[in-house]
Amino acid sequence: MIPALSAPSPVEETLPDTRCRILATAERFFREIGYQKTTVADIAKTLRMSPANVYRFFDSKKAINEAVVARLIGEVEARIAALADRPGLPAEARLREIIVFLHRDAVGRFTGHPRMHEMIEAAMSESWDVCRHHVDRITAVLERVIADGVARREFAVEDSAVAARCVHTAIVRFCHPVLVVQCPEDVVPALDAMIAFLLGALKAGRAGPQTG
Amino acid sequence: MIPALSAPSPVEETLPDTRCRILATAERFFREIGYQKTTVADIAKTLRMSPANVYRFFDSKKAINEAVVARLIGEVEARIAALADRPGLPAEARLREIIVFLHRDAVGRFTGHPRMHEMIEAAMSESWDVCRHHVDRITAVLERVIADGVARREFAVEDSAVAARCVHTAIVRFCHPVLVVQCPEDVVPALDAMIAFLLGALKAGRAGPQTG
Repeated sequence: MIPALSAPSPVEETLPDTRCRILATAERFFREIGYQKTTVADIAKTLRMSPANVYRFFDSKKAINEAVVARLIGEVEARIAALADRPGLPAEARLREIIVFLHRDAVGRFTGHPRMHEMIEAAMSESWDVCRHHVDRITAVLERVIADGVARREFAVEDSAVAARCVHTAIVRFCHPVLVVQCPEDVVPALDAMIAFLLGALKAGRAGPQTG
Repeated sequence: MIPALSAPSPVEETLPDTRCRILATAERFFREIGYQKTTVADIAKTLRMSPANVYRFFDSKKAINEAVVARLIGEVEARIAALADRPGLPAEARLREIIVFLHRDAVGRFTGHPRMHEMIEAAMSESWDVCRHHVDRITAVLERVIADGVARREFAVEDSAVAARCVHTAIVRFCHPVLVVQCPEDVVPALDAMIAFLLGALKAGRAGPQTG
């Protein structure tokens, strides 16, 4: 018996491409049934095709998961790239919007969908390269905004690449799928306070007062 | 059959107190065999006592784990409190030493001991209060050093409590048992760079240059 899924969205029904239909169905299974319990046979049956046909497109469940995760990641990256390049805004405001987006996106995607966690855990342990490239690309967007802030004299850091890694690492609690779900809100600062703190570091560069 | 453990240390052999002997044995089981596979019966047999005798001291494996974790945590807290109060050092140097200690301690404790992870996961999901108090006490030590740095005019933050939460949250990647083991070193800045970045924020306070 195939586990019951919620109705597919109209968008999924009209997707022309078999590959996309497989990914859309797999994603719903992973979200609702969980990565571990989903089989390629379930996905094939739901799409009224043979497992062999699914295997023509993806050679394993792991490969399907990598493609699902890559699609989610691609959406996030497109959104933050658009925020990074919004014209007319100071770098500070763009950086703030990017961090707020990353946090809200992680909260919306992972809280209330405990099974999404399985999918991400699988990607992190089986397909680390996919995750690493995501981290690298987000860091690259942060670096672009920080470098622009330095050029506009908003920020005073010496090395935008290092600063971007520091900012990205500092917000891991607010964006990492596992931590967003596991850690209660009341042991961390409010996101606004964290952003203000990080902006302070970017504005300070190495020009802070000397220690005693 | 009881799983074979490494030889107990001389300290454990001479521990006078049954409670302490139970905890020392449980900790070795959790580290070497894993939390899930360890039973109260294993611990009792190794100590040549009845399970009923163990239950006189701890009413469940969960209670044993809480006591083991509390003991580990107590050691860490004592060490960082000593670093926080070292006389004659600027607050900046003490903060740096505390962060480096927290990172090295987490790396030493968790990498190479994959089963320790199980024990911590169990504590985080079953005994969150123990973990929360630990986070709170570490944050309180950071706050004390930051407030002292403000008094000495090394730092310029308005609210030492908020700054301490920001610093503690920003270093979660370097101290959290799960992240220390899971995330490769090369996607994060070097710890020295991260510390320099955070010190910049503490020195800057809200006195950075205005945005354009």
